[in-house]
Amino acid sequence: MTLQTVSTNRSYGGTQGVYSHTSEKTGTGMTFSVYVPAHQNGAKLPVVYYLSGLTCTHANVTEKGDFRSACAELGLIFVAPDTSPRGADVPGDPAGAYDFGLGAGFYVDATQAPFARNYRMWSYVTDELPKLIGENFPVDPARRSILGHSMGGHGALTVALHYPDRYRFASAFAPIVAPSQVPWGVKAFRGYLGDDKQAWRRHDAVALIEDGARFPEFLVDYGDADPFLNEQLRPQLLKSACESAKIPLTLRRQAGYDHSYYFISTFMSEHLRWHAARLKA
Amino acid sequence: MTLQTVSTNRSYGGTQGVYSHTSEKTGTGMTFSVYVPAHQNGAKLPVVYYLSGLTCTHANVTEKGDFRSACAELGLIFVAPDTSPRGADVPGDPAGAYDFGLGAGFYVDATQAPFARNYRMWSYVTDELPKLIGENFPVDPARRSILGHSMGGHGALTVALHYPDRYRFASAFAPIVAPSQVPWGVKAFRGYLGDDKQAWRRHDAVALIEDGARFPEFLVDYGDADPFLNEQLRPQLLKSACESAKIPLTLRRQAGYDHSYYFISTFMSEHLRWHAARLKA
Repeated sequence: MTLQTVSTNRSYGGTQGVYSHTSEKTGTGMTFSVYVPAHQNGAKLPVVYYLSGLTCTHANVTEKGDFRSACAELGLIFVAPDTSPRGADVPGDPAGAYDFGLGAGFYVDATQAPFARNYRMWSYVTDELPKLIGENFPVDPARRSILGHSMGGHGALTVALHYPDRYRFASAFAPIVAPSQVPWGVKAFRGYLGDDKQAWRRHDAVALIEDGARFPEFLVDYGDADPFLNEQLRPQLLKSACESAKIPLTLRRQAGYDHSYYFISTFMSEHLRWHAARLKA
Repeated sequence: MTLQTVSTNRSYGGTQGVYSHTSEKTGTGMTFSVYVPAHQNGAKLPVVYYLSGLTCTHANVTEKGDFRSACAELGLIFVAPDTSPRGADVPGDPAGAYDFGLGAGFYVDATQAPFARNYRMWSYVTDELPKLIGENFPVDPARRSILGHSMGGHGALTVALHYPDRYRFASAFAPIVAPSQVPWGVKAFRGYLGDDKQAWRRHDAVALIEDGARFPEFLVDYGDADPFLNEQLRPQLLKSACESAKIPLTLRRQAGYDHSYYFISTFMSEHLRWHAARLKA
């Protein structure tokens, strides 16, 4: 797979890069960003994957997320993919809404026309992208974690629950924890996966836990001024599921914080420290 | 003067706000951002003014600058104004270029038609804005500093040299230090100030120092991969002027860094620590 370098900028002693390639999974061009901190020649570094929320590209967290300072200090590589396939031929939401289609891939492999051809973000994020990162960046694949925000928090939790061997720890900012039960998720799953609710359960963190999936430990932060908290996010459903399944969950309610990058950035370095401490243990 | 709140977001325990008002100086609406860290009731905090570069609004540093973490820790208020008046009636560059007119006010009071009516960023930044901040935010006006980037570094240095009583310390990222001698500055000064080069000297940091202005101490960082370094920025001219005038200048060449916010953010917390240590001394 050939990687094109879109841009590189020196930052905090390391390199913030943006790269593009033609994806086998989505059949489109895909763009992602990677921050590589300063490191010794030949070193293999732990890596965190950050999955973004609705409407985002790789650029939102790359430009607005205060992650480089902590990654530089901790020696972490930070990878941020896009949230959907894009391109003139890629179908979007028929009504042009922000919560389905472009910028809203929901980290599933669509089975429904006309989305099944390109909307394969599950395979992209869990398979194609890690291979590409392994071939092109100094990562240690045995020390890989995942985190995300909102729809990307959903992605991080479900990827982790499917592949605890590949992603050793998982955390999230304001995640959608039970997409089968909330409007954003129901719309996306119906559109991408059709009406078979068993297929939905494989992409619903709470349902996965109910169905037996297990994971070593989760960290989740949410703001109590988040306008999506009660309708779309519903973190208490994750708390109940983790308690029943005896999965350690640190769930923190952050007073006064909303759904924005101002919230994410505030707690980003704590999340990265949490991952780094565990990946290096 | 009435202030409208455009948005507030909780971040790093404080509040990132964006505000707008009708400016007496520019005759237009103006928008700026203020970060206020958590503080005790009744406390008056030191304040830093950050002046942005060409093409920027208040939003660039507000979204991309890693300053909130340090401001929260240090107890600093951070104010970021726009770089020009804006509006349907505000004239821009006749050719639509990025380096004059909208987004390029150069922190002067224009004397030339058609710019003299609105382009009064000098008075706005040195007079109207500090008054507005003093009336609406918990600042200690005796502990006020200024910093900036590129065109805003020029602004910070010239404001400081004019008003060492009002702005106690000044620092800059990749500043234009001698606008009278470089293409960006010559174009701006000719357009805003006309052909009288004595008027230019009042807005040229190197010329101001040559003409007798003094300041306690400057901190300046620039990247040696900055594409504007040799043609537009020319930090060595500031070094020579400061040496002749015995003004303490810490001038740091940062290897591999460019002109972007990835550079600014890397050294932002060091600049804020530098200001805070001096303002609190």
